[in-house]
Amino acid sequence: MDVACLDLEGVLVPEIWINVAEATGIDALRLTTRDVADYDELMAHRIKTLDANGVKLSQIQRVIAAMGPLPGAAEFLDWLRTVAQVVILSDTFYDFAMPLMAQLGYPTLLCHRLEVRDDRIAGYRLRQPDSKRAAVKALQSLNFRVVATGDSYNDTAMLAQAEAGILVNPPPNVVAEFPQFRVVRGFDQLKAAFADALASA
Amino acid sequence: MDVACLDLEGVLVPEIWINVAEATGIDALRLTTRDVADYDELMAHRIKTLDANGVKLSQIQRVIAAMGPLPGAAEFLDWLRTVAQVVILSDTFYDFAMPLMAQLGYPTLLCHRLEVRDDRIAGYRLRQPDSKRAAVKALQSLNFRVVATGDSYNDTAMLAQAEAGILVNPPPNVVAEFPQFRVVRGFDQLKAAFADALASA
Repeated sequence: MDVACLDLEGVLVPEIWINVAEATGIDALRLTTRDVADYDELMAHRIKTLDANGVKLSQIQRVIAAMGPLPGAAEFLDWLRTVAQVVILSDTFYDFAMPLMAQLGYPTLLCHRLEVRDDRIAGYRLRQPDSKRAAVKALQSLNFRVVATGDSYNDTAMLAQAEAGILVNPPPNVVAEFPQFRVVRGFDQLKAAFADALASA
Repeated sequence: MDVACLDLEGVLVPEIWINVAEATGIDALRLTTRDVADYDELMAHRIKTLDANGVKLSQIQRVIAAMGPLPGAAEFLDWLRTVAQVVILSDTFYDFAMPLMAQLGYPTLLCHRLEVRDDRIAGYRLRQPDSKRAAVKALQSLNFRVVATGDSYNDTAMLAQAEAGILVNPPPNVVAEFPQFRVVRGFDQLKAAFADALASA
């Protein structure tokens, strides 16, 4: 039995920061890695913006819990768990993601941690650089084959490291730049792509 | 958030081969690693015994599905998944364990595979030697702390490798030989031990 590694945001759940921006009405939280290439700079901007608007972690967690997984995500994951061992690899934070994990039946999630003081986001701790690719390599070192899926740039190293990589709902520039990966849209196509990749062991 | 690594048989589900021996009435299947130290020899004996009695994989799978998890195991696992990322590390086979995983909400399981031909168990494929310890090391290489629990000899390397190791329902000889590990009995005590170990990060 193989291991299936899945990105979280954009694949199983909506983009968290964009939804927080919408729910709080704070447009400055809409910036993503597409707007600010440096991740530390982007996170510093987000934390400063939250502080300036008095937004606490618990408030963000309520927004995230209410947004729920993408339609069809829970059913897709229920199927995938019967045919592969599932590990979610994400660059989000446990403090954000756990309310969504509850709605997905708590699949195993490897991500990062926020530093929180008195319900205020004070900082963050990335577990390691290039963490998604490192996790796939670790699973391969245990003699597992890995089939990976994600939607964006920060998933391509993981997809390249895996025995099979699938782009799901990617933007056109990622499709153009990474023609080696199968491209699918929606959970029916993703299910078919996983079934194919898992069968060709 | 830390990773919790759990042995399967004797911790979350009953001993599979002993239950198969009871359900089929074939006493020769009662032998364990305590009786036959060499694993290859033991498995050769089991496969020969199954063949001699015409027992097929699907029959064993029905026995396993019917035996179900240990009382309280599903509730314990539901709690553990809210406070840690759970990975089951077992020396059993996916072909045996998946009906039980369905009853435990499909936690991520790293184990081995049988070689099956026409519903007959023809052999087996161990993923790697010392596989439980290797999995803990792989998780630590991703900068996770690991709290591990198991009940017998083949778990002690995993418990020693982890940041914290807990023996649950162990036999007296294992307790005597490994005094360094906390010993608990039943899921209430196991829950308390995990809560303690996870808190002392």
